[in-house]
Amino acid sequence: MNDDQLHAMRHSLAHITAQAVQHLWPDAKFGVGPVVENGFYYDIDLGDTKISEQDFPKIEKEMRKIIEADYVFERSQKQIDEALQWAQTANQPYKTELLNDLKRSGTTIAKELDKEAMGTIAEGDAAMDSVGFYTDGDFTDLCRGPHVESTGKVGAFKLMRVAGAYWRGNEKNPQMQRLYGVAFATQEELDKHLEMLEQAKLRDHRKLGRELDLYTMSPLVGAGLPLFTPRGTVLRDVMAQYSNQLRMARGFTKVWTPHITKQDLYEASGHWAKFGDELFLVTSQETSDKMALKPMNCPHHTQIFASQPRSYRDMPVRYLETTTDYRDEKTGELGGLNRVRSLTQDDSHVFARPDQIEAEIDGLLASARELYDTLGMKLRVRLSYRDESDAYLGDPELWQSAQAQLKAAVEKNSLDYFEQDGEAAFYGPKIDFMATDAIGREHQVATVQLDFVQPERFKLEYAGQGEVSLRPVMIHCALLGSIERFLSVFIEHTGGWFPLWAAPEQIRILTINDTVLDYVQEIEAVLRDTVLMAPVKYNELRFTRDDRNESLGKKIREATSYKIPIQLIVGPKDKDAREVSVRTQAGEEKVALERLKDFLINL
Amino acid sequence: MNDDQLHAMRHSLAHITAQAVQHLWPDAKFGVGPVVENGFYYDIDLGDTKISEQDFPKIEKEMRKIIEADYVFERSQKQIDEALQWAQTANQPYKTELLNDLKRSGTTIAKELDKEAMGTIAEGDAAMDSVGFYTDGDFTDLCRGPHVESTGKVGAFKLMRVAGAYWRGNEKNPQMQRLYGVAFATQEELDKHLEMLEQAKLRDHRKLGRELDLYTMSPLVGAGLPLFTPRGTVLRDVMAQYSNQLRMARGFTKVWTPHITKQDLYEASGHWAKFGDELFLVTSQETSDKMALKPMNCPHHTQIFASQPRSYRDMPVRYLETTTDYRDEKTGELGGLNRVRSLTQDDSHVFARPDQIEAEIDGLLASARELYDTLGMKLRVRLSYRDESDAYLGDPELWQSAQAQLKAAVEKNSLDYFEQDGEAAFYGPKIDFMATDAIGREHQVATVQLDFVQPERFKLEYAGQGEVSLRPVMIHCALLGSIERFLSVFIEHTGGWFPLWAAPEQIRILTINDTVLDYVQEIEAVLRDTVLMAPVKYNELRFTRDDRNESLGKKIREATSYKIPIQLIVGPKDKDAREVSVRTQAGEEKVALERLKDFLINL
Repeated sequence: MNDDQLHAMRHSLAHITAQAVQHLWPDAKFGVGPVVENGFYYDIDLGDTKISEQDFPKIEKEMRKIIEADYVFERSQKQIDEALQWAQTANQPYKTELLNDLKRSGTTIAKELDKEAMGTIAEGDAAMDSVGFYTDGDFTDLCRGPHVESTGKVGAFKLMRVAGAYWRGNEKNPQMQRLYGVAFATQEELDKHLEMLEQAKLRDHRKLGRELDLYTMSPLVGAGLPLFTPRGTVLRDVMAQYSNQLRMARGFTKVWTPHITKQDLYEASGHWAKFGDELFLVTSQETSDKMALKPMNCPHHTQIFASQPRSYRDMPVRYLETTTDYRDEKTGELGGLNRVRSLTQDDSHVFARPDQIEAEIDGLLASARELYDTLGMKLRVRLSYRDESDAYLGDPELWQSAQAQLKAAVEKNSLDYFEQDGEAAFYGPKIDFMATDAIGREHQVATVQLDFVQPERFKLEYAGQGEVSLRPVMIHCALLGSIERFLSVFIEHTGGWFPLWAAPEQIRILTINDTVLDYVQEIEAVLRDTVLMAPVKYNELRFTRDDRNESLGKKIREATSYKIPIQLIVGPKDKDAREVSVRTQAGEEKVALERLKDFLINL
Repeated sequence: MNDDQLHAMRHSLAHITAQAVQHLWPDAKFGVGPVVENGFYYDIDLGDTKISEQDFPKIEKEMRKIIEADYVFERSQKQIDEALQWAQTANQPYKTELLNDLKRSGTTIAKELDKEAMGTIAEGDAAMDSVGFYTDGDFTDLCRGPHVESTGKVGAFKLMRVAGAYWRGNEKNPQMQRLYGVAFATQEELDKHLEMLEQAKLRDHRKLGRELDLYTMSPLVGAGLPLFTPRGTVLRDVMAQYSNQLRMARGFTKVWTPHITKQDLYEASGHWAKFGDELFLVTSQETSDKMALKPMNCPHHTQIFASQPRSYRDMPVRYLETTTDYRDEKTGELGGLNRVRSLTQDDSHVFARPDQIEAEIDGLLASARELYDTLGMKLRVRLSYRDESDAYLGDPELWQSAQAQLKAAVEKNSLDYFEQDGEAAFYGPKIDFMATDAIGREHQVATVQLDFVQPERFKLEYAGQGEVSLRPVMIHCALLGSIERFLSVFIEHTGGWFPLWAAPEQIRILTINDTVLDYVQEIEAVLRDTVLMAPVKYNELRFTRDDRNESLGKKIREATSYKIPIQLIVGPKDKDAREVSVRTQAGEEKVALERLKDFLINL
């Protein structure tokens, strides 16, 4: 089943849902019923009646009746006044409102709801004089389609939840009930999706973040501003180190820039005009400086590049900075680590000659591939090119050459890719990386972007051979993206069972009784002497000791609840044999103390 | 000579300076003439006549005449109206203004100028009816003294510079000429001071920062917001790593907190009421949140401590965070790295039981001592205690016990110390560290502060034995203080000749000709394989290669201009002998390639 067919099927199920609701509650008033990711919803006003999950079997049963009846979806076209008449007669005030909008301007609720929701009804800019309807059996709805042929052709579905939703997303309007369902071509696919949702729930990073003590939120500090505990900070640091080490091995050097700047910097870069109202503004009480928190680092980095004369022999100049940017997200859009106001980027900028683009991109792609291979996440990349419109700045020949170099580097790195025209940024073509997690979800992660515009705006230059002054190209890259968002993915990908090298607490020594305490000191000396060198270099072991006077069972349960990769169990027999019981997710085995270091390094 | 005597002498020299100026320019009008660090100044209005450094010999000659005459400083007291009469007759309008102020309120210009300047004239809150005067020879000045006995007793002095200064520091007032001098008890001390100033000028970190390409300022980013180049970032990172490694070896773990917070956090901590007008305010354009940039990290860290229940067995809890704080300094007070608006602190907070204070302080002092020993800077500490006033919060018994524990830890660490009552913060006693640099200047660096108040305000607690809930003590500590300010000291202390482990570029390989290029690759392999482990662990060598077709002399000069600690010179003979010429500040020697790694590690 292709995407269009899936879309039609889900949209038909939205109609069938409304139809079933109308059978059960004949006074139901309907809003809109669009397709969303993996399914559909319908907004319904039932007056004082509240639908709950307990009603789902009843509604689903009614839906199945409609599906079994295999009603044909019949399209008809009505003059708009005729349509208004229909809505009036059917006692559907929300449809009346939509039709009046369409009569006036040809669009409706597009601004308040998502594109999909609008798309179900109409698309266009001009006032309309006729609109489409679909009828299946006893149910007719204002709709531009398309639908499946008949109600029998809708595949597998399940109602998932019901939630309050203001009509047109405006809290001054009546609150409706939004009934969500998921739908797939086959029952097998639906089951897989439901299983994935179960898995996702267990792995929810907000739940694991609490259980594993990774980060906390404080109402005094504010929404979207997580504070990282010692355990969560290890994750941040070890991932940033890995990302940095990969690039430093390829000639990047770290720089440091402040988190604020005068607005002048963004006026020069052009960001002020474009994004000025999305910034956190900073007011100096001592001076009249107008400032902002930085939402990105490139303009700052241009100032370091510009601080010295550069020659073609110095190029490329490669800066790396893991630093926190601030974006003024709406509080309602914030959740866990997925969307935060303080986003730490593992950012880098290359200032390159145009002939160096391919080699630089190659190095960055190789870094990204190595990183996501290590994490066990499959990568797919989108090559985003310009189209023929005039929405793009910079020399078209440079664009063409750059796009070819991007593609060559992607092919050289054997990356699974697809190309899209018209998806480039206005300032240059880019490569977006999607990584698939352990339960099959795809996440946008790293990005590599060319930029022909900032070097121009900041008049960056390097001396070419023969005293000419040339303009460099900038290459933006973040391998993890926002570290906070990356961690939300990483926590859910691993379910909190982090690989040994990344685990906040890697090893816990559990004693069986106090006679082994001197032996435990010997074990600790071995652990202190063990430094992991791959994938992250200079990764000292993080271990603790539980020598409380508690049962081993309790100690094991506690260590397991923190998902510590290695438990070293030490009893009198181990002491005598100079070995330890190494307990991992894979099982338990005895390891001689003198072999322990090698064993851990090679695990 | 004690401090009071030195002060009297410098103040007497201010009078003598004015007296000499009056001899040379009889129409001179005088402002104030206070004592400042190492010397004195006098503010003088000469109408259109501008004093320049070329006039200094003439003025100094006149001063010496007055000194040789050995006039006695005679004190007299005048009724205030009589004093006003004197100022009128002497045609001294600024003195008239000061006397009118004194007549009204007993204080003058205290707010506009420093305390010293005010102190020279009067001290007190009540309106005055009589004021002091001092006369030596033909010169009389409004003054509360004290002075040396006679003009012959003033030691060694030198006029240093003349600069514009608005009367009372207000740019709406007339501009006067501020004539500065330095003065010491002996010529030897004066010479030493002048030599130190010469040295300081050569070592000025702003000059070296430019020459060694360590940081840059951008007018687009703003004053007091340095951007660190790759070289400067190495210095930042290596120092922060050292500071962190010292504490992590003592059980500290890193945490991470955002740079902004809702003002609620500072309202809860009490900082808002005290320092609210010194903060950078942050405005969200998407929400109504009232926020600020953090000027310190302790309130954030309390929120991490408070995020979990704690037991007496978990204590102490030790957090470490190198993070940037923002303080809204006046633009005029900003200069180089010494005073910035973005200060990165190597901050830490211990949450301890009261009985753990001494052991925790001991660990921090040992860390500070180790760090400054490594840097070759002598440490001196001030123990700042409370006095009997009621300006201090917290249980007096806890204060007493804590002060005793601080002193015990300082003595245990054999630190040179002195004690001062009344210098504690209102929230707890503290230890301030002063480090002496290579040219004898003392700088305030690290600090360790106890805090009884924030745990109270945030209601922090841990479970004691037997289910009681107890309040922890907080211990604030920064070993470097502000890293930016520390670097300004470190750059001037070393004169830019950083020790090998800290140098941004540690080694440069200089080739004599191209026949050695293959051999250079072997040398580079050795360098890549060499990782310094002390004083900072996992410190990979930072080296470059200069294989340009230039003369060795030119290559050496360039490498030396960057103050690179080690130049490895490689010619055909070295290649044949499988050795390299190692050139350091100490001289040049041949080292066999197979010994090079050990040689560098042990340097």
